[in-house]
Amino acid sequence: MNQVFKKISEKRRSINFFDTNRDVPEETLVEMVDLAANTPSSFNLQPWNLMVLRQAEEKERLRPLAWDQPKVTEAPVVLIVLADKTGWQEGHPVFEKNWEEMLRSGTMQTDQRDWFLNATQSLYNWSGDANLAFAAKNTGFFAMSLMYAATSLGLETHPMDGFDHEAVQKRFKIPDNYWIPLLLAVGYKKPGLELHPAKWRKSYHEIVVSF
Amino acid sequence: MNQVFKKISEKRRSINFFDTNRDVPEETLVEMVDLAANTPSSFNLQPWNLMVLRQAEEKERLRPLAWDQPKVTEAPVVLIVLADKTGWQEGHPVFEKNWEEMLRSGTMQTDQRDWFLNATQSLYNWSGDANLAFAAKNTGFFAMSLMYAATSLGLETHPMDGFDHEAVQKRFKIPDNYWIPLLLAVGYKKPGLELHPAKWRKSYHEIVVSF
Repeated sequence: MNQVFKKISEKRRSINFFDTNRDVPEETLVEMVDLAANTPSSFNLQPWNLMVLRQAEEKERLRPLAWDQPKVTEAPVVLIVLADKTGWQEGHPVFEKNWEEMLRSGTMQTDQRDWFLNATQSLYNWSGDANLAFAAKNTGFFAMSLMYAATSLGLETHPMDGFDHEAVQKRFKIPDNYWIPLLLAVGYKKPGLELHPAKWRKSYHEIVVSF
Repeated sequence: MNQVFKKISEKRRSINFFDTNRDVPEETLVEMVDLAANTPSSFNLQPWNLMVLRQAEEKERLRPLAWDQPKVTEAPVVLIVLADKTGWQEGHPVFEKNWEEMLRSGTMQTDQRDWFLNATQSLYNWSGDANLAFAAKNTGFFAMSLMYAATSLGLETHPMDGFDHEAVQKRFKIPDNYWIPLLLAVGYKKPGLELHPAKWRKSYHEIVVSF
């Protein structure tokens, strides 16, 4: 199992040139998203959503807001990945569905409702930063899963954050409760494309710190 | 490859009870972190670090700040995962090493320095939120990779955000440039432990939205 994950992790590269003649079948996209849906999240609140852009017109609307990157229109699918800063709030449909599911499975009891409300409030609303970090971190988990799932299905991806956040939010009528952590181009590699060697990465000893 | 990723994704569960008699060998931890080091990041800035807690005394210091969760002391390894909000800044050692490596590999030329500085400034410093979101998202990618890497090596994990952020920061002398997105317990499952069925997850149609 570790050799295969190593292969997936090495095979996953950020691709700049996609095959414009090869679409991503809908069932492959659904399989990719369903695989990533297993991602863990804070209290299972899953504060992520996706907008799926497939139409040329939609991608052309996005491209000038994303540094005019050709892959925005060349990739058959571009996902606008959304992080829901309000996913921890009482009354949010996912929050409430999660609560119902916990009661149903017996992992929570009705009289723990106040505990649950206090827990999410105290963790994700103690500062202005906390609800943004909650959304961005969990959606980061989800986006990474999307990339591995894509690789495992033979797809290529490119996570992009070179875009005008406010302009994309406005142009695509994205409600204020969302932060946009990234756009994700999804498709197949342009035939004949040769990749540069993988970029350097920090080693274990550069990652681990102590104070 | 997709069947194996599916298996990894289903095998990865958040474990509450670890085998207190089974340590994580140092080489396994290094392999896990090195596998996760392949994670992509904004401009390859890799704004993540880890503190590795193995000593009983360190974990006992952390546990009361983390809702007194038994797994904080029972897991042989607890990682404090750190997101570096300043990882995009000129002069940051990783920023500068990254620049040098791009020059060396020919993916950037010396006269693109201003472009590179402007790009990272404009993306990660346009608002007070942007540098936190930059750090939290990328470190979210990395943490998800750590969890899959662990699973692929036969390890179990539990990502935790039930802790007092400010108290952990102070008690462990963590500098202000870091946000702490999560703690990650790492070890082996307690013998005989039976897991609850996996929690519900949003379906494709609950994840995809349009406006």
